Amino acid sequence: MTKVPVGILGATGAVGQRFVQLLADHPWFEIAALGASDRSAGIRYSERRWVLQPDMPEAVRDMELRLGEPENFSDCRVIFSATPNDVAARVESEFAAAGYFVFTNAGPHRMDSDVPLMVTDVNPEHARLIRVQQKLRGWDGFIVANANCTATHLTAALKPLDDAFGLEKVFVVSMQAVSGAGYPGVPTMDITDNVIPYIGNEENKLEEEPHKMLGRLDGDHIEPADFILSAHCNRVHVLDGHTECVSVALRRKATPEEAAEALRSYRSLPQEMGLPSAPDPCIVVRDEPDRPQTRLDRMTGNGMATVIGRLRPDPILDLKFVLLGHNTIRGAAGGSVLNAELLLKQGYLKPA
Amino acid sequence: MTKVPVGILGATGAVGQRFVQLLADHPWFEIAALGASDRSAGIRYSERRWVLQPDMPEAVRDMELRLGEPENFSDCRVIFSATPNDVAARVESEFAAAGYFVFTNAGPHRMDSDVPLMVTDVNPEHARLIRVQQKLRGWDGFIVANANCTATHLTAALKPLDDAFGLEKVFVVSMQAVSGAGYPGVPTMDITDNVIPYIGNEENKLEEEPHKMLGRLDGDHIEPADFILSAHCNRVHVLDGHTECVSVALRRKATPEEAAEALRSYRSLPQEMGLPSAPDPCIVVRDEPDRPQTRLDRMTGNGMATVIGRLRPDPILDLKFVLLGHNTIRGAAGGSVLNAELLLKQGYLKPA
Amino acid sequence: MTKVPVGILGATGAVGQRFVQLLADHPWFEIAALGASDRSAGIRYSERRWVLQPDMPEAVRDMELRLGEPENFSDCRVIFSATPNDVAARVESEFAAAGYFVFTNAGPHRMDSDVPLMVTDVNPEHARLIRVQQKLRGWDGFIVANANCTATHLTAALKPLDDAFGLEKVFVVSMQAVSGAGYPGVPTMDITDNVIPYIGNEENKLEEEPHKMLGRLDGDHIEPADFILSAHCNRVHVLDGHTECVSVALRRKATPEEAAEALRSYRSLPQEMGLPSAPDPCIVVRDEPDRPQTRLDRMTGNGMATVIGRLRPDPILDLKFVLLGHNTIRGAAGGSVLNAELLLKQGYLKPA
Amino acid sequence: MTKVPVGILGATGAVGQRFVQLLADHPWFEIAALGASDRSAGIRYSERRWVLQPDMPEAVRDMELRLGEPENFSDCRVIFSATPNDVAARVESEFAAAGYFVFTNAGPHRMDSDVPLMVTDVNPEHARLIRVQQKLRGWDGFIVANANCTATHLTAALKPLDDAFGLEKVFVVSMQAVSGAGYPGVPTMDITDNVIPYIGNEENKLEEEPHKMLGRLDGDHIEPADFILSAHCNRVHVLDGHTECVSVALRRKATPEEAAEALRSYRSLPQEMGLPSAPDPCIVVRDEPDRPQTRLDRMTGNGMATVIGRLRPDPILDLKFVLLGHNTIRGAAGGSVLNAELLLKQGYLKPA
Repeated sequence: MTKVPVGILGATGAVGQRFVQLLADHPWFEIAALGASDRSAGIRYSERRWVLQPDMPEAVRDMELRLGEPENFSDCRVIFSATPNDVAARVESEFAAAGYFVFTNAGPHRMDSDVPLMVTDVNPEHARLIRVQQKLRGWDGFIVANANCTATHLTAALKPLDDAFGLEKVFVVSMQAVSGAGYPGVPTMDITDNVIPYIGNEENKLEEEPHKMLGRLDGDHIEPADFILSAHCNRVHVLDGHTECVSVALRRKATPEEAAEALRSYRSLPQEMGLPSAPDPCIVVRDEPDRPQTRLDRMTGNGMATVIGRLRPDPILDLKFVLLGHNTIRGAAGGSVLNAELLLKQGYLKPA
Repeated sequence: MTKVPVGILGATGAVGQRFVQLLADHPWFEIAALGASDRSAGIRYSERRWVLQPDMPEAVRDMELRLGEPENFSDCRVIFSATPNDVAARVESEFAAAGYFVFTNAGPHRMDSDVPLMVTDVNPEHARLIRVQQKLRGWDGFIVANANCTATHLTAALKPLDDAFGLEKVFVVSMQAVSGAGYPGVPTMDITDNVIPYIGNEENKLEEEPHKMLGRLDGDHIEPADFILSAHCNRVHVLDGHTECVSVALRRKATPEEAAEALRSYRSLPQEMGLPSAPDPCIVVRDEPDRPQTRLDRMTGNGMATVIGRLRPDPILDLKFVLLGHNTIRGAAGGSVLNAELLLKQGYLKPA
Repeated sequence: MTKVPVGILGATGAVGQRFVQLLADHPWFEIAALGASDRSAGIRYSERRWVLQPDMPEAVRDMELRLGEPENFSDCRVIFSATPNDVAARVESEFAAAGYFVFTNAGPHRMDSDVPLMVTDVNPEHARLIRVQQKLRGWDGFIVANANCTATHLTAALKPLDDAFGLEKVFVVSMQAVSGAGYPGVPTMDITDNVIPYIGNEENKLEEEPHKMLGRLDGDHIEPADFILSAHCNRVHVLDGHTECVSVALRRKATPEEAAEALRSYRSLPQEMGLPSAPDPCIVVRDEPDRPQTRLDRMTGNGMATVIGRLRPDPILDLKFVLLGHNTIRGAAGGSVLNAELLLKQGYLKPA
Repeated sequence: MTKVPVGILGATGAVGQRFVQLLADHPWFEIAALGASDRSAGIRYSERRWVLQPDMPEAVRDMELRLGEPENFSDCRVIFSATPNDVAARVESEFAAAGYFVFTNAGPHRMDSDVPLMVTDVNPEHARLIRVQQKLRGWDGFIVANANCTATHLTAALKPLDDAFGLEKVFVVSMQAVSGAGYPGVPTMDITDNVIPYIGNEENKLEEEPHKMLGRLDGDHIEPADFILSAHCNRVHVLDGHTECVSVALRRKATPEEAAEALRSYRSLPQEMGLPSAPDPCIVVRDEPDRPQTRLDRMTGNGMATVIGRLRPDPILDLKFVLLGHNTIRGAAGGSVLNAELLLKQGYLKPA
C-alpha cells in the first residue's frame, strides 16, 4: 500500500511537533511537507528547536519549511493543522477550498455547524457532516476538527455513561499540564510551587464542546446533547497530562460498579476497525484508590487512552470519579491523526 | 502583662514547628516546654531537623525535649498539640483530665460531640461547649480542636455566604500542598510532574467537619448545619497553600457581586477584639481574573486569611469561585493559636 | 532629610521590579519616575504584570510609565537602570551625558575601563574611577555598574580570601536560578525535571568580571587581579538564588578554619558606614554539613549577604566550598542600590 | 537456549525494581526469585508499591517475596543484589560462600581488594580478579560489584581520555537526581525550589572508586590509577539522571576535537560481543551548545550510555565538559546486568 502524503501546518510549534512525531513512522501516512509562518519558511526543520523526546525524527530534519499556503502543498492531499488560532480561520478555509482534506487542532472552526468536531471513539458518525459542509461551502476538500484537549478526554469518559444511563449534569474541575499552553508557554516563574486557577477561554470551550460531540447528527446539523456542564479550569505544575475531577448526575441511576462496567466495556468504530492509532481499550478503568496519576498513567495506550479511577457515589449528584488523558497526544495531534485514519478507511480521502 | 507559659506537644513535627514559630514572639504566650515522643525526649530541640524558614528561633534552640506526658508540663497551663493522631486520642485526654487547656490540631477529638471544633472567625460561640465537656468528663482542663486544613478555609469562605444567603449544596475540589502531609511527608518521586488524586481520609473530613462548624450550639450539643457537601481531594506539587474550586447552591439567590460583598464585609469576634493573630479582614476577595494563586497569595494576612477569587455564576448550582488558604498556618497551628487567644481573652484559661 | 528623587529605567522587567521593591520604602531615596520602552510608555505601572511577592507597592501603582529618555526624567538626579542590554549602551550614556548619576545592572558598560564595576563590600575604592570617567567623557553625570549576579557573589567570597592569602586559581561551577533569565524567561517545559548545562555568555562574564573587581585602582585605570578562573554555568530548577561550588588555590596556604575566620571577620566600608542596605555581616559562614541551601538561605541578610558553607580541603587546589547568593537582590537591583547609598554618603551625588 | 534463573535481593526498593524491570524480558536471564527483608517476606510482590513506569511487569506480580537468605534461593545460580548497605556486607558474603554468583549494587564490597568493581565498558579485564577472590576466600561463588552511580558515568567518560592522553587531574561537580536516594528518599519539602550541596559519603566514593576502575590488574590485585580527583556533590530537583561538570588535566595535551574523537570512537568488549544490554556507542558526544540535558538525554542508549557535551578548553586544567548518565539504569541495576551478561558469555557463571 502506498502511503498517503500529508502536510503539517504549524509544524514548528509544540502540537505541530507532536504531529511530526506521530506521523514519522505512520503505516498509512507519510510526511511530505512541513508548513510554517513566513518567519520560518525556507529554513530546514532541524534549525527550529525541538521540544519533545526523543530527538527529532531523522527523516524530517532536512525538510525545508514551506510557507503555509495552499499552493505550496500540492504534493499532499491531507493536511494536519496546528496553526495558531489567529490565522487558522482563514488559512484552513483556503486549504479546504483548494481541495485539501484538513484535520485541525485549531479552535476557530470547531463550533461551525457544518464542521465535524470529532473524538473518533465518541462520535465517528459525525463524519457524515462533511458532505453537508462540502455542499454548503462548495468545497472539494473539507475541515474536520479535533476537540479541545480537556474536552476530548471528558467527552470520552462521558460517552459510555451517556449511552448507558443518560447524562443530566456534569461538574468538572481540571488540573492541566503546562504543555497545553504550547512552547515557550508557561514561564517557570509562574507555575513553580503554584496553582493558577485560570486558563483563558478554557472553561467556555469545556462547557460547550462536549454538547456538540455528544449530540445527534440530524440531517444537516448536530442536535446538541441535553445536559448541563459546569467547569473550573486550573493550571498545575505537570508537563503533560490533564487530570479532571468529575461528578455526574445520570437520568437512570447507576452504581459505581455499573458505571465502571459501562466504561470498561465501551468499544467503538476505531477499535472494531483496528485503526493503527486506536487505543484498545479506549477507556482504562483503574481500581487502585490513588490512580490515575498524571506522570504514571498519561502514556496509557500510547497516550491515546482515557484513564479513569476512583468511581464512587457523589452526595450531590450521583457519581464522582477522576480521569486523566494526555493533552498533546490524544488531546491534540493524536486525536486528529485518528480522525484521519477513520476517514481514510471510510473513503473520505479520495480526490473528487 | 505576664505571658502565659505554654507547652507544645509533638514539637519536632512540621505542625509542631509552626506552633514554635508562631509562639516564639507571641505577645501573650511564652513557650515554656516542648514535648516529643520517647525517641526524642531528653535531647536539645536544635538537634532535630528544622523544616521551616527562617531558621529555628534562638530562644528554643537549647530547650530540652520532654516526653509528652502531663507530669512533665507542670510549668504550663496551656498546651498546643501537634501530636500524631495515633497517640493524640489518649494523650490529649490525659492532659485535659490533669487540668491542662489543650488546643489541638490532631484529628481524634474533632468530631466528639462535646469538643468545640473551632475556626475562630467562624464559630467563636462554640467555645461554650467547653463547659459541657468539663461537666460531662469531670475535667478541670479541656480540649478545643482546630479543623482539618482544607475544611478550615472552606468553612471560612462558606460562613458569610451561609449567613447572608443560606447554604444548600457545596461542591469542592481541592489541590493541596505537600506540607499537609507533614515531614518527611510526600516523596519527591511521587509528586514531581504529577497530581495524586487521592489523600487518605481527607474527603471524609472535608465532607464532615464544615457541618459541625457551621452548626448551631443548642444547649449541650451542636446541631449540624443542613446542607450537602461533595469533595474531591488532590495532592499537587506546591509546598504550602491549599487551593479549592468551589460551587455552591444558595437558599436565597445571590449575584457574584452580592456574594463578594458578603464575603468582603464579613467580620467576626477576633477582628472586633483585635486578637493578635486575627487577620483583618479575615477574607480577602480579589478581582483579578487569575487570582488567588498559591505562591503569590498564601501569605495574605500573615497566612491567617482566606483568599477568594473568580466569583461567577455556576450553570448547575448558583455560584462558583476559587479559594486559597495557608494550610500549616491558618489551617493548622495558627488556627489553634487564634482559638487560644480568644479563650484567654474570654477568661477560659484560668485555673479552676 | 529630604529624600533623593530617583528614576528607574526598565521598570517593568523582573530586575526593574526589584528596584521598585527595594526603593519603595527606602530611607534615602524616593521613586519619582518609572521608565519603560515605547510599548509601555504612557500607561499606568499597575497595568503591567508584577512578578514579585508581595504585591506591587501601593505608592507606584498609579505612576505613569515614561519613555526612557533623559528629557523625561528631569525631576530625578539619580537613575537606576534595568534597561535591556541592547538599548542600555546608548541610553545610559545619554543619561550620564545629560548629568544623571546612573547605577546600572545592564552589561554593556561593565568592562569599560573608566566605569567602576562595583560590589560595594568588595571594591568601594573603585568609585574614584568616576572622576576619570567624567573627565574623559566630558560628563557631569556618570555610570556605575553592578556586576553579573553570579560574579557578584563569587567575588564577594573571594575578596577576603584574596586579602588574607592571595588568590592563584579559582574553579567554579554554578547552579543558577531561573529568575536570572528575567520574565517570562525560562519556559517550564525547559527546566522541569531538568538541568540545562549552559547559559549564553555567562561563563565569559563570570571568568572576566571578578578580575576587574578584585583589581587595584592605579591612577586612571584598574589593574586586573592576577589569578586564573575557570567556570561552568548551569541552569537548575530554583526560582531565586545562585549556588556555586568553588575550589581555590591560594598563594599562602590556609586551613579551612583559617579561611572561615577570614570570611567571617570580613567587614568593609558599607558595614562601617552603616549603609541602610548593607548586610552585616556581608558574608555568613555556616557550619552545618548541608548548608547553604538555596530556598532556606537565599534571604540571609535580606538577600544582600553571601552565604558560604562546606569549607574543606581540595585535593587538587587548596580549599573547596559552596556559596549561595540571591541573584536578583544582591546580584542585581540590590547591588546597585547599595552602590548608590555609598556614593550618596561620599558626596558623589551632588549636582555639578 | 535455556534462560539462566536469577534471584533479586532487595527487590522491593527502587534499585531492586530496576533490576526487575530490566530482567523481566531479558533474553538470557529469567527472574526466578525475589528477595526481601523479613518485613516483606511471604507477601506477593504486587502488594509492594511499584515506583517505576510503566506498571510492574505481569510475570512478577504474583511472585511471593522470599527472605533474603541463601537457602531460599536454591533455584537460582545468579543473584542480583540491591540489598541495603547495612545488611549487604554479611548477606552477600553468605550467598557467595554458598556458591552463588552475586552481582551487587551495594557499597560494602566495592573497595575490597579482591572484588572486581566493574563498569563493563571500562574494565572488563578486572573480571579475572574473581579467581583471586574465590581462591582467597575459599568460595565457589563470587561477588562482582558495579560502581557508585556518579562514579560509573564519570569513569566511563574518563576511560577513553585516559587511554588516549593519560589523566593527571580531574575536577568534578555533580548535580544528582533524587532517585539516587532510593524510595521514599528525598522529601518534596527538601528539594523543591532548592539545591542541596551535600550528599552523605558521596564525595568520598566519587573520589575513590574511579582510581580502582581505571587501575591495572596486576596479578592478584588492582594497581590504582595515578591521578588526582576532586569532587563536589549536589542534589538537584530532577527525578533521574546525574549531570557532572568535569575539568581534566591530561598528560599529553589534546584539543577538544581530539578529545571528542577519542570519546566518540571508544568501543569495548561489550560492544564487540554484542551483549544484549550494551549501549553502542557507549559514549555519545553531542555538538549542540546546550546538551546533554537531563530530561532530554538520560534515556540515550536505553539509559545505558554516557552522554557528553560542551567539550572546550579549560583555563586552569586542559579541557572541560559536561556529562550525563542515568543513575538507576546504567548507574545501578543496568550496570550489574551488563556485568552479568559479560561473565555469562565468558563462562564465569558455570557451577563449580
